[in-house]
Amino acid sequence: MRIRMDVDLEKGTIWTNPLPESAVWLGGRALADSIVVQEVPPACHPLGSRNLLVFAPGLFAGTSMPTASRLSVVGKSPLTGGIKESNVGGMAGMSLARLNIAAVVIRGSSTQGRSRLLIVRSQSAELIDAPELHGLGNYRTVEILKKRFGDGVVVLSVGPCGEMKMAAATIAVTDVNGRPCRQAGRGGLGGVMGSKGLKAIVIDPEGAKLHKGADPGAFAEAVKEYTGILQSSKKTAFWRENGTAGLVDVGHARGSLPTRNFTSGAYDKKDGVNAERLKTLTAQRQGAMGHACMKGCVVRCSNIFNAPDGRYLTSGLEYETITMMGPNLDIDDLDTIAQIDFRCDDYGMDTIEIGATLGILSDTDLFRLGDREKAVQLIDEIGKGTVLGRILGQGATTTGRVFGITRVPAVKGQSLAAHEPRSLKGLGVTYATSPQGADHTSGFVVEEPFSREGHTERSRKAQINMAIVDSLGLCQFTGLRDEYELFGRLMGALTGTVPSPEQVRSLGQEALRQERRFNEAAGIGPGQDRLPEFMRSEALPPNNNAFDVGDEDLDRVFGDYPE
Amino acid sequence: MRIRMDVDLEKGTIWTNPLPESAVWLGGRALADSIVVQEVPPACHPLGSRNLLVFAPGLFAGTSMPTASRLSVVGKSPLTGGIKESNVGGMAGMSLARLNIAAVVIRGSSTQGRSRLLIVRSQSAELIDAPELHGLGNYRTVEILKKRFGDGVVVLSVGPCGEMKMAAATIAVTDVNGRPCRQAGRGGLGGVMGSKGLKAIVIDPEGAKLHKGADPGAFAEAVKEYTGILQSSKKTAFWRENGTAGLVDVGHARGSLPTRNFTSGAYDKKDGVNAERLKTLTAQRQGAMGHACMKGCVVRCSNIFNAPDGRYLTSGLEYETITMMGPNLDIDDLDTIAQIDFRCDDYGMDTIEIGATLGILSDTDLFRLGDREKAVQLIDEIGKGTVLGRILGQGATTTGRVFGITRVPAVKGQSLAAHEPRSLKGLGVTYATSPQGADHTSGFVVEEPFSREGHTERSRKAQINMAIVDSLGLCQFTGLRDEYELFGRLMGALTGTVPSPEQVRSLGQEALRQERRFNEAAGIGPGQDRLPEFMRSEALPPNNNAFDVGDEDLDRVFGDYPE
Repeated sequence: MRIRMDVDLEKGTIWTNPLPESAVWLGGRALADSIVVQEVPPACHPLGSRNLLVFAPGLFAGTSMPTASRLSVVGKSPLTGGIKESNVGGMAGMSLARLNIAAVVIRGSSTQGRSRLLIVRSQSAELIDAPELHGLGNYRTVEILKKRFGDGVVVLSVGPCGEMKMAAATIAVTDVNGRPCRQAGRGGLGGVMGSKGLKAIVIDPEGAKLHKGADPGAFAEAVKEYTGILQSSKKTAFWRENGTAGLVDVGHARGSLPTRNFTSGAYDKKDGVNAERLKTLTAQRQGAMGHACMKGCVVRCSNIFNAPDGRYLTSGLEYETITMMGPNLDIDDLDTIAQIDFRCDDYGMDTIEIGATLGILSDTDLFRLGDREKAVQLIDEIGKGTVLGRILGQGATTTGRVFGITRVPAVKGQSLAAHEPRSLKGLGVTYATSPQGADHTSGFVVEEPFSREGHTERSRKAQINMAIVDSLGLCQFTGLRDEYELFGRLMGALTGTVPSPEQVRSLGQEALRQERRFNEAAGIGPGQDRLPEFMRSEALPPNNNAFDVGDEDLDRVFGDYPE
Repeated sequence: MRIRMDVDLEKGTIWTNPLPESAVWLGGRALADSIVVQEVPPACHPLGSRNLLVFAPGLFAGTSMPTASRLSVVGKSPLTGGIKESNVGGMAGMSLARLNIAAVVIRGSSTQGRSRLLIVRSQSAELIDAPELHGLGNYRTVEILKKRFGDGVVVLSVGPCGEMKMAAATIAVTDVNGRPCRQAGRGGLGGVMGSKGLKAIVIDPEGAKLHKGADPGAFAEAVKEYTGILQSSKKTAFWRENGTAGLVDVGHARGSLPTRNFTSGAYDKKDGVNAERLKTLTAQRQGAMGHACMKGCVVRCSNIFNAPDGRYLTSGLEYETITMMGPNLDIDDLDTIAQIDFRCDDYGMDTIEIGATLGILSDTDLFRLGDREKAVQLIDEIGKGTVLGRILGQGATTTGRVFGITRVPAVKGQSLAAHEPRSLKGLGVTYATSPQGADHTSGFVVEEPFSREGHTERSRKAQINMAIVDSLGLCQFTGLRDEYELFGRLMGALTGTVPSPEQVRSLGQEALRQERRFNEAAGIGPGQDRLPEFMRSEALPPNNNAFDVGDEDLDRVFGDYPE
């Protein structure tokens, strides 16, 4: 039986309840959304005690399904002011699920210490004080926690950025190697965790059990089919070989690679930062490609990147980080980017948001594109919380405000990711209309990238599908989207109650509907469903396209949405 | 015939057109609103070239009506992200109106220099470059402009804060003595002016003519009646004797005086900053009480405040400044507050917004309540644009974001003024629901201040009446609100077309309706019609009331509004 665990930091109490029957198919984003929408006052301050922070493994997490144990983290975002789901790999989703925990709900703000730990074990949980961890980076924090609680623990933690309640702060999750290199990155939920005085959640997986499903035979059969699809997919082979860094060449070729503060879609120096270069360096330095972030993954898009001396530098050097900190800042070497990536993981900040932030800072005299040393130094300022660092740590929108910068690539307060909507107009529709702010994982659309027509339906469909994927715990790199029939069979065999394909679809629809309603009650009206002005007025080289999808087409994405 | 003057800073062109007949009763806020709503794309960046900045004297400006020549400044606000009307006294409204200019519409952003001047004369206007003024304060700017264009000119200008495009930047307007001490203070419209590269508008009143009206006899008769009401009013006598500083004792007595960062409604040291103290110091130092900001005013609530050595220090030391920089910061001497006031006028920043900002900064270790020297120093940091100054210059909401402060007295990004809504709940309804953000001049409600009931209708009525008052050019201190019949007679005699009382009322209704629609299209949904969370959870001494008007009552203010 799946349970929900509530943890009140203010009172120092923990209690559990079984999930209600109505939640039989709910997991991940859908489950966490429903808790936040029902229990968080939309007008509350995101860093105040009435906000909740919900950790919910996807429905398939903890089963034998590979690449399907992701974790949703949901709360009211200090970055967007709306509801935010940040989705993360690593080992936390699987571990919680195998302890039968469908959701951990963090309530209140600590009154008993500013650095609390939540220890979750098979049959118990406790809150303890750990003042000695205050101010420490994620790597050191995890090292200390492993010494204390055992090497096998899985840790979710915040670094100094989260403790400083920054709107670009992340929550780090340990990977298969126990390193805090996977980040629930977007939307500043690390700031929410910090505001509650919760430094880390330590999961002891002892006693964790594989979920075999209500009908183990049928479930195993369906999992076999699912796994077969993944294993035979060309995309899987591409990700395993190149990692997400494989997208650098793809983006460059189609002109959608954010370059030099979103002034170009192609980067003349891309060979210094693409997958070929990454593979060469990884081979030379005994790093790894085809690395998995969670156990049993068949995609294995991650990597381990070592320093020139062969020592570990960072893991999960991903496309988004490479592009936002590389081409977008005119930095063309992976070593600098890897150093930045390590620091961001350690301090706990979103590489996408901060890459966009340093990009726009080049409109002031505080940063010059291409200045590697200064880029690293500014990351350190954020991690140390200097006055300038405090600004940058709030992300691009606030930094733009403070310095009067008008050219800010952001929607609803959140920066665009490393995919240019002027060369991917369907994705531009998602950026504009997603209740999550500009978010490439909310509904990627690649069809007819330069057309201004036809994206309303594509984006809506993609957003619904991603809401399903995020609820089931699937990784986006499974490539599976509208396999409602297969999903339905898996859900049925797992839970004992078989949903129709339409019921699977409505899972995604309902999640989006709830998110939109929450945002509206929080004051984020449909008028915010717009890309930044400069994307309509500036044509983007080399394709020389501006974003020109009509406002009426943007408004129809949810305006036509069935109630 | 009233004309509209358009000035395109980008192209360097100026043109004029007569106002359309449909605008016969439109002036001030209503006229400027209609221009902004029709011509500014709601999603544009407030500091970008597509925003407009409109200066419109009230309909009665330039006539013989005393206390009725105020100026509305309207544009999309960098502070709230919505439409903003900032209303100001001084000599600009009268001067423009007497040159038959109903609106000056500033378009585009300068491509020809960063410090442009607009010179407005009786029959001509021109744009010239004045790079030597860049970075200068308002006082020095006006001094130089008077030397160049004559002592009689009226100047609207921005100081360094406006040039830095700060969201708390003001537009200074010269008063009867030619001093830039009157500020279009709220909403950061100085930042909009700065973003356009317009340093100042210089109005040469030579050739200006008193407006006698279409029916001079009837108009003179109605003006006599109006003036009689003002002259016989006890309120007029109160303002003339005490200035707005008279409200310090009033606010203290009813517990609505923001004190120590909105933690109390009464100030134990209020005798150091109240009207009695102001009058004593003014008499000792040969300053002035009962000073007028514009010619012919019968209320004369302004003052001239001299330094201990008898030299001019500042003018218009007003209640809002005194309270937000005094009790709210636990600063109990008028000399410090007057120094701050002078600096704010000179740098061009809103004393209300910045007072609230320094207040919340006391939640960090960067400022301690009561620290006079530090307060002055922080004002200088803003004016000089240090990194910290850049943050503070964006106002309380952005400062709160940067430092993770959750207790921020602001609505829709704009700080509350010096009137506590927990002890003035009707005003709280206005703060929450006004399209202008938290704004005490949008509709003051004093009735039943501690009741949670009955304020929906009061606030709606007050907001409609203030929109009328702002459109006619009346000063709020005339005390006249729903004199629709008298207003109608005055409008009829002036324009030759008599409106019914219902038509007068609909002038205010329509202005609010347009403002709300603009805001919604800009993404500011009704969900933002809320006071900050802490005002509901913290009871305010000495009355120990929290704000408890129901959300449904807030939503009805405009939810029931006739379409």
